[in-house]
Amino acid sequence: MTMRTKRNIAISKSAIIGYNVQIGRNAIIHDHVEIMDHTIIGGDNCIIGEPDARYYKDDNYTNPKTQIGGAHSLIRSGSIIYSGSLFGEYFATGNMVSIREKSIFGKHCSVGGTFSDVQGDVKFGDYCRLNSHVQIGSKCMFGSFVFIYPMVVFTNDPLPPSNHLVGTTVDNFSQIASGSIILPGLTIGKHCLIGGAKSLINKNVPDFEFHAGNPAIRIGKVTHLWSNENKRPHYPWPYNFDRNLPWSGIGFDEWTKQKREKCIHFEHTFSQHSSNPL
Amino acid sequence: MTMRTKRNIAISKSAIIGYNVQIGRNAIIHDHVEIMDHTIIGGDNCIIGEPDARYYKDDNYTNPKTQIGGAHSLIRSGSIIYSGSLFGEYFATGNMVSIREKSIFGKHCSVGGTFSDVQGDVKFGDYCRLNSHVQIGSKCMFGSFVFIYPMVVFTNDPLPPSNHLVGTTVDNFSQIASGSIILPGLTIGKHCLIGGAKSLINKNVPDFEFHAGNPAIRIGKVTHLWSNENKRPHYPWPYNFDRNLPWSGIGFDEWTKQKREKCIHFEHTFSQHSSNPL
Amino acid sequence: MTMRTKRNIAISKSAIIGYNVQIGRNAIIHDHVEIMDHTIIGGDNCIIGEPDARYYKDDNYTNPKTQIGGAHSLIRSGSIIYSGSLFGEYFATGNMVSIREKSIFGKHCSVGGTFSDVQGDVKFGDYCRLNSHVQIGSKCMFGSFVFIYPMVVFTNDPLPPSNHLVGTTVDNFSQIASGSIILPGLTIGKHCLIGGAKSLINKNVPDFEFHAGNPAIRIGKVTHLWSNENKRPHYPWPYNFDRNLPWSGIGFDEWTKQKREKCIHFEHTFSQHSSNPL
Repeated sequence: MTMRTKRNIAISKSAIIGYNVQIGRNAIIHDHVEIMDHTIIGGDNCIIGEPDARYYKDDNYTNPKTQIGGAHSLIRSGSIIYSGSLFGEYFATGNMVSIREKSIFGKHCSVGGTFSDVQGDVKFGDYCRLNSHVQIGSKCMFGSFVFIYPMVVFTNDPLPPSNHLVGTTVDNFSQIASGSIILPGLTIGKHCLIGGAKSLINKNVPDFEFHAGNPAIRIGKVTHLWSNENKRPHYPWPYNFDRNLPWSGIGFDEWTKQKREKCIHFEHTFSQHSSNPL
Repeated sequence: MTMRTKRNIAISKSAIIGYNVQIGRNAIIHDHVEIMDHTIIGGDNCIIGEPDARYYKDDNYTNPKTQIGGAHSLIRSGSIIYSGSLFGEYFATGNMVSIREKSIFGKHCSVGGTFSDVQGDVKFGDYCRLNSHVQIGSKCMFGSFVFIYPMVVFTNDPLPPSNHLVGTTVDNFSQIASGSIILPGLTIGKHCLIGGAKSLINKNVPDFEFHAGNPAIRIGKVTHLWSNENKRPHYPWPYNFDRNLPWSGIGFDEWTKQKREKCIHFEHTFSQHSSNPL
Repeated sequence: MTMRTKRNIAISKSAIIGYNVQIGRNAIIHDHVEIMDHTIIGGDNCIIGEPDARYYKDDNYTNPKTQIGGAHSLIRSGSIIYSGSLFGEYFATGNMVSIREKSIFGKHCSVGGTFSDVQGDVKFGDYCRLNSHVQIGSKCMFGSFVFIYPMVVFTNDPLPPSNHLVGTTVDNFSQIASGSIILPGLTIGKHCLIGGAKSLINKNVPDFEFHAGNPAIRIGKVTHLWSNENKRPHYPWPYNFDRNLPWSGIGFDEWTKQKREKCIHFEHTFSQHSSNPL
């Protein structure tokens, strides 16, 4: 088909392009980018391995290595990914997202939606999902299965302007609802819900708690949240939601049991030494 | 003039391009896009009919039809419009907006400002205007003459993460002020004002009411809002504002009268069976 | 190096390109753009001097002059700068920012971060910094050394929809923290802090005050804010923060003294007639 003819693509000679990689129109692949097998850089107009400002000013600048996607990743149109980041397999972006340097994403993560901005030097575990207009300040760390909804900001400056930025840490399975702002240096536990919406989080959130408001207060245990859809408690949500998640088909308990039996731990998480991911 | 020389344009053989259409540089027009007469795809770097992810993985994928703009539409630089959406005449975007699949816009709508994200499967009537950094969750429906100001989010997930998303409905002439977040499944009446700013709307809003706050409360009737500019009540706002609106020059009463005499109803609205659009 | 080979660049014959200017791939430089010496238009995919809609419809349209950057400016990938704006030396953008027409920026300003939207007809002094997802409504005016953090909105419509937009004015050294919304027509003094976060500012803020909340209230003097990092008051912040600022190395007092001795005043500021910039 005509449209699959690729044109106006620039690929650095030092880039490594895997097997069965599709690269869309007007793509720019900078030095030392490694794109793994079966990855799709497309739609179009993507920039991978964007160098920092020294690239333009320093003839001795060497672009750090950028590794896209284990395999099977999908980078949508207009996205810009800086050099020096690493992405696990099945990584995906929406249109026009920006991911700065030295970010690390586990497997099956999605910086989806649109117009999300990951400022660099952050870590995500596996199966994390970012919706649109999300802003992740540098130094933040996230476990696995953390979902972040539209217009959430993770700040990192305790008293602006500061020299020393301080990230916040979010543990496995927590959900950060639309419009929340998270202040710097906090610890959010596992299986938390931050929200309703427009919440300002200014203190730590223990495991399994629901905090909301401006400033946020403890509303209660997440296990008290009722699902009108399922006519039972909605949290822990993995019992009620499995779209594109590894317990789809087998159920969360069985998946947890299998992981325990095989001594498989989450990678990149904060509770990897606990015997029970719950 | 040099700049009007178009280059690096990709147009699918199955696209239909009308009379007097201008297409800017680096534009990508995908399969089954239909661009009506006198439309301008430009500035530059626009993508029209962006396919979904199956395009890259399924050789039998067929791109749904995308129909831009009755006629006289203007798509500004860097905008990405997915396949499967329909736009009435005089549709306009700002720079770098994203409109997902299966969205329907009436006539004279503007997804303006910049960085607005319409997530797909939404309906807008006529003369709706979106400002910058707006996020419209899928399943939402809007009447005509609804204006949405910067950083507004229409959410659609009642208790994240959910399998069944629920949109909100907004009736004719309502105004959603900057920074508001609207929770899912609500009904906002006609001629409402949601705002000041940073409001969290978590319950239905009857016609002609002004709600604001976090969470929002009923402040009063919009008809009590005083215009310092005009030294009279500001709402119903069509008596005080007519820029590029169909009652410009004749006044809102005369326009309403003419519509009634001609039995012309709003298209795509929720009050089409009422005898009076007010 | 391969990647430095530039391709698919469109430069108007009426554009003036200075000495040692680098222009990235797919750049579009419109009529009457003037790019000063040592400026970098890049990464890539930038549009400079974007015309307004009349360009497409009026054969007699003349693009207003756009002047980038005194010298040494850096425009990052995917940014769109409209015609008719002026930028002082060492101007910088992040990726994918949009700056509308008739904006004026002093020296050393940064519309950084990503996805920021300056709506046009605004003025910034020197050394202002905008983070990501910032929205500046037209008619706003800023002094020098004003820093604006993520997801801040400066609104300009007193009672939407209005015909007469009203900007807000922010004086030197003030800091606007993440997620704040500023209502129209206000005056924010110098050395203020607006924040924590998610504040709604609806009244004037005197010099040296800290306002926060929704709606914001006066919390106190900024001079009472304690820096855990430095174990002393954090404000006036120029005594504690000097990264890429002109008092770096000499201290704020010495820099102030030198300015006073040389009768150098801030340009574009609101306190230029005061004897002491503090």
